Amino acid sequence: MATTKGFSVHDEMDVPVTLAALTLEEKAALLSGSEAWASTPVERLGIPSITLTDGPHGVRRVDPGAESFSFDASLPATCFPTAAALGSSWDVDLLDRVGEALGAESRAAGVSVLLGPGLNIKRSPLCGRNFEYLSEDPVISGRLGAALVRGIQSRGVGASVKHFAANNQETDRMQISAEVDTRTLREIYLAGFEHIVTTAQPWTVMAAYNKVNGVHAAQNSWLLTDVLRGEWGFDGLVVSDWGAVTDPLAAVVAGLDLEMPGTNGTSARKLVQAVRTGIVEESVLDQAVARLLTLVNRTTHPHEPVQEVDFAQHHQLARRAAAESAVLLKNENALLPLDPGAGLTMAVIGEFARTPRFQGAGSSRINPIRVDSALDALTRAAGEQWTLSFAPGFTLSGEDDQDLLAQAVAEAAAADVAVVFLGLAEGVESEGHDREHLHLPEVQIRLLEAVAEANDQVVVVLANGGVVEVASWQHHARAVLEGWLNGQAGGSAIADLLLGHANPSGRLAETIPLRLQDNPSYLNFPGSAGTVLYGERGYVGYRYYDAKDIPVAYPFGHGLSYTTFGYSDLRTTVEGVGEDAVVRLSLTVTNTGPVTGREVVQVYVADLACSLDRPVRELKAFTKLELAPGQSAPVDFELRARDLSFFSPEHDRWVLEGGDFRISVGASSRDLRLTATVTVDAPQLLRPLRMESPVGEWLAHPVGGPLLRRMLSGAQGSAVAADPTIFRMVESLPLSRLVAMSGDRLDTADLSRLVGRKP
Amino acid sequence: MATTKGFSVHDEMDVPVTLAALTLEEKAALLSGSEAWASTPVERLGIPSITLTDGPHGVRRVDPGAESFSFDASLPATCFPTAAALGSSWDVDLLDRVGEALGAESRAAGVSVLLGPGLNIKRSPLCGRNFEYLSEDPVISGRLGAALVRGIQSRGVGASVKHFAANNQETDRMQISAEVDTRTLREIYLAGFEHIVTTAQPWTVMAAYNKVNGVHAAQNSWLLTDVLRGEWGFDGLVVSDWGAVTDPLAAVVAGLDLEMPGTNGTSARKLVQAVRTGIVEESVLDQAVARLLTLVNRTTHPHEPVQEVDFAQHHQLARRAAAESAVLLKNENALLPLDPGAGLTMAVIGEFARTPRFQGAGSSRINPIRVDSALDALTRAAGEQWTLSFAPGFTLSGEDDQDLLAQAVAEAAAADVAVVFLGLAEGVESEGHDREHLHLPEVQIRLLEAVAEANDQVVVVLANGGVVEVASWQHHARAVLEGWLNGQAGGSAIADLLLGHANPSGRLAETIPLRLQDNPSYLNFPGSAGTVLYGERGYVGYRYYDAKDIPVAYPFGHGLSYTTFGYSDLRTTVEGVGEDAVVRLSLTVTNTGPVTGREVVQVYVADLACSLDRPVRELKAFTKLELAPGQSAPVDFELRARDLSFFSPEHDRWVLEGGDFRISVGASSRDLRLTATVTVDAPQLLRPLRMESPVGEWLAHPVGGPLLRRMLSGAQGSAVAADPTIFRMVESLPLSRLVAMSGDRLDTADLSRLVGRKP
Repeated sequence: MATTKGFSVHDEMDVPVTLAALTLEEKAALLSGSEAWASTPVERLGIPSITLTDGPHGVRRVDPGAESFSFDASLPATCFPTAAALGSSWDVDLLDRVGEALGAESRAAGVSVLLGPGLNIKRSPLCGRNFEYLSEDPVISGRLGAALVRGIQSRGVGASVKHFAANNQETDRMQISAEVDTRTLREIYLAGFEHIVTTAQPWTVMAAYNKVNGVHAAQNSWLLTDVLRGEWGFDGLVVSDWGAVTDPLAAVVAGLDLEMPGTNGTSARKLVQAVRTGIVEESVLDQAVARLLTLVNRTTHPHEPVQEVDFAQHHQLARRAAAESAVLLKNENALLPLDPGAGLTMAVIGEFARTPRFQGAGSSRINPIRVDSALDALTRAAGEQWTLSFAPGFTLSGEDDQDLLAQAVAEAAAADVAVVFLGLAEGVESEGHDREHLHLPEVQIRLLEAVAEANDQVVVVLANGGVVEVASWQHHARAVLEGWLNGQAGGSAIADLLLGHANPSGRLAETIPLRLQDNPSYLNFPGSAGTVLYGERGYVGYRYYDAKDIPVAYPFGHGLSYTTFGYSDLRTTVEGVGEDAVVRLSLTVTNTGPVTGREVVQVYVADLACSLDRPVRELKAFTKLELAPGQSAPVDFELRARDLSFFSPEHDRWVLEGGDFRISVGASSRDLRLTATVTVDAPQLLRPLRMESPVGEWLAHPVGGPLLRRMLSGAQGSAVAADPTIFRMVESLPLSRLVAMSGDRLDTADLSRLVGRKP
Repeated sequence: MATTKGFSVHDEMDVPVTLAALTLEEKAALLSGSEAWASTPVERLGIPSITLTDGPHGVRRVDPGAESFSFDASLPATCFPTAAALGSSWDVDLLDRVGEALGAESRAAGVSVLLGPGLNIKRSPLCGRNFEYLSEDPVISGRLGAALVRGIQSRGVGASVKHFAANNQETDRMQISAEVDTRTLREIYLAGFEHIVTTAQPWTVMAAYNKVNGVHAAQNSWLLTDVLRGEWGFDGLVVSDWGAVTDPLAAVVAGLDLEMPGTNGTSARKLVQAVRTGIVEESVLDQAVARLLTLVNRTTHPHEPVQEVDFAQHHQLARRAAAESAVLLKNENALLPLDPGAGLTMAVIGEFARTPRFQGAGSSRINPIRVDSALDALTRAAGEQWTLSFAPGFTLSGEDDQDLLAQAVAEAAAADVAVVFLGLAEGVESEGHDREHLHLPEVQIRLLEAVAEANDQVVVVLANGGVVEVASWQHHARAVLEGWLNGQAGGSAIADLLLGHANPSGRLAETIPLRLQDNPSYLNFPGSAGTVLYGERGYVGYRYYDAKDIPVAYPFGHGLSYTTFGYSDLRTTVEGVGEDAVVRLSLTVTNTGPVTGREVVQVYVADLACSLDRPVRELKAFTKLELAPGQSAPVDFELRARDLSFFSPEHDRWVLEGGDFRISVGASSRDLRLTATVTVDAPQLLRPLRMESPVGEWLAHPVGGPLLRRMLSGAQGSAVAADPTIFRMVESLPLSRLVAMSGDRLDTADLSRLVGRKP
């Protein structure tokens, strides 16, 4: 298939010169789109329109002739696995490759900015858009998202990291205010964005629909200016999510550069008027226009030829990505991989085997080049060697059909093994609304039960973007393979995995809870009356389940393989102090099983004593490596001060508190194989003493403590010191009030001299 | 024992006249104490000093000659059961009686204001002061607290409802800011105070130490003026908790009238200067002074004689109160009551049987008139009839003692039944610091295990103020009686209950969770860096356990009796609409067992459909009634609109949404015996439509909905209406943006005419 060469060729602009030549009206016009998917051109000065297109997992280039609101009228493109799948690969190199392919297809389609990746944290499994997001953990989101950005931009196309920030639900998404404290924002919801901005330099960031602590993200100067540009050094353009701007002036003042889609000139007129009436300086618009011109320069490549897209190769990449992303949840008696030896009869059951669900609904839905079904792939593999039957079992519309059920049971009864394809209906997972529960459709559960009664060798293959509840039905299956929404080649990848042509190496990037009620956001999702309280603070996903010691169906990081891995020889060294501290780990991982496989080695860190509450463990590093049977390989990690730090709301910065840290290395958050404790030194962060400081803080002070203790135990200390109960009671009392309440019997001259001194 | 007659006799003052005669300096001086426990007098004008004294469960009248900081130097008074016990009685009349006794002892001791009751909600079982609070539920706290206030004030003594508000922990209590949303404050943390203020007219309210959403409670004008006085009509005086005022000027401006304790004139000087320099109007001070003078008038009774206190009668009341408050948690094979027939041998084990723990530490600790031990009471009861042995088993200091253990095991082995007295050490539960876990001391658990191995007829009697974890050890006991910290007559009451002279009728006013980690505040208690987030919002106690369907050791409302009760014939009627709605319930309760007993009938309400999330069920009414064996009695309840309403943060008021409500009547939150669904009508609360209202709100509108639907399905609606996926996506889109994004193809003239119209 030929590529599309859609965009105009322009020479690089001199930004200051062009800026100086623009009229106020032209500048204002540049700051919103010309239509749904294009920026505004200024032909007089050779400023082209550039195209921005949906596409976390494929290029949704809308057919210029089509109705712009239709999601079906986009030009064909490779549909890669969704982010829910890619996140489960834990494979940075793979996401780099997928990014390159997305970039190449974008450039060939004349797309300058591809709107992705989606970085939002999976706060609730109910979020309708979770299939577009990578993980419940910011380290995975950040590392994998950075790889996608690097890959996309390596082809001369801008990525757009979205949705910035705290856009963790679809319900009331245009108005809802995420009420979330600073520490939680920094440690969970912003950390992935920060990693990408500081390591992969995305050319654009997309401001989200929702409010953050009462202020629209697209009009939030703390987010867009103070943090994103001021602290992280972002040098790109901030584009609004489509329709996210309520007040164009507030947006541009806050640091938003490009409002999308176009507003037929309404926003531009408001900006012009604001400058003319002195409400805003023209220089504020200039700054945004300069960023737009810079983006145009970055994405228009007058002298670089567009490469032909090799869609066949991209399909193979999509197939490999799908295989790397599937998570083998259970595999009793090593039922998988199926041995297609002579005489095997396999019943393939479930409409999804024939009609795959491979992507979610909404803006990310693209028009795939081709779609592989697992049924076709298995049928092809069976050839003359073994026997395969198929029964749809249920319809996609979900109604009860006893005939389909009976047929499936009959096929299952006649076969050696039944492979049952289950999943969520398409409409359930979409941009625009959240899910209401975690259950598979009732009709599918009844099918599974009936099949399991007829055949006790059942494999379930799942197709879903957000997690589904498995605890109530998984005892009917000996093996469960979570395939996710895995793109156009997903069917082939599933066949590869079932038959052992590929070895599962996906790991859960999101905990599968036993019940929806166990989720930390359960009573605070999706909020009401315009606000949603992030009451669980940073205890999202496994951070909550582990801190509350709640049993789960499958823990974060879990995933089986057709082989096994041993961990040994963990060694740690610590160098440097405070901000310069580096903890180095080395260990050996060995393939102790029968076949080649890929292991994800996960590093979790626990702060053993801290002035603030911290999670029981947090993922801080991971790597994926392939090992042949019997092969061992050394694995090294380096943890930096930031990996041991917390964000201190009091100091408004990341703080490393010296002390002991437990480093655990393992195969999931609940399968820790090796553990070491390291001691890291850091300067003590004492607050200067005040007379209003609590007595407890005085007592903990290296100089003030002994002084106060002596005073209280002396003749003047009286009953305060004599009675240990009173002594514990006054710990939190400001010293000044203790003095006042003791009838001024305490002589505080010595203490006063310490007030305000740097510790 | 003779009463103490301590206070001066003064004629009632004319408040305006006296106010007019005061100098600015005198007014300022009146607004803080003269010393630790007394207000400032102005002898020139005959304004006496009045005494304010600690005492939720007894009068802690500090010996005027003693060191004011010592908790041991108070004059003897009856020590009633702590609030944790009294709250478990669910007995409004009983608390009225206890209040009267407290009032009588206060008046006899020359005390004008008794500092109690403690109304704070038991947000976490770790709160060190939970023994001073009534419940995890505001209806219990409010109804029982109101009874105490009525009782105290019926004797001419002012109550002080404390600690207002959201003072739910001891950790960092002087500085911590409770971050809690308005709806949660109103529905949980303020509701009990509101009930008391509006029904029992307390003469004083005590402002708490902590901050509420960043503002010190003692300087919080929203709390002290807008809500307390403006909305609830409080006409009394607001006194600070002792040492709670940081800024005396801010406090008086916010509505605080009396700063305690005295500050040697410092605060008064600041107030005088503020008036002199025009920072504050003198009228602000006048208002506070007038309230103080009114309180003085209310509490000095020149012409009413002080009654002699009948301490023997108060002891009997304390004994009855302790018996009413104990909760029989389990009673396998009806082991209790013990039948002291001929030949029974009982081993009494545990130091607490001999040395009772009957009150907590801190400001509420009083000097009891006498203390009954269970050992003495049981020994007396045994007389010549049956045999009793005693072994302390452990020491109060908690160290391991193998000899004591062995002796206890020997006594247990030789007896028919072993009654083991366990509990928390005294220092563990105190004002000033929180608990660290819910476990009984390890040495006591080991004792219980050893005893249970020697004798399988084990009764455990618990002494603790906050709940203890029971799940890990209760299988060693056939019966568990939770005695709480039950005052000076608690030992006799326990004997009464064990022997069947009294029938247990206490019910849990606080859930006993299986594990501390299950508590809703677990990861948000006690906060850090100066703030604590009430992340569970209103889902406190059973509201959380029930909403998340978490198993508990014993549910809220649970408590066994030596008899059984049947519930029948629930009838409901609904009258009126909206604010005038009244739901009347009637049912019959029957004593279906062998002995006279008292049942607590509990009414829970669930809103079956609401625009906001609401708890699965909430206690809204209860009553306690005594029935002889076989006796039936009718029980009636009346629920008002408020009982069905929620506090709407959008409307900033209580809102009744019409619809179906499920009314359940039962013996605990998880033992619902009868259920009915009633339909209550209320005017629909629609917001006026705006072009910025979400499409979903337009569609739900009785006029706008059909109009918009017609428009979208017409020729102009195009793809938006055609694609159901898109349709669901746009539900939360403001209509104005839908119009803009559709390329202005939608004609909104008809819709615009609806904008702003009252629905």
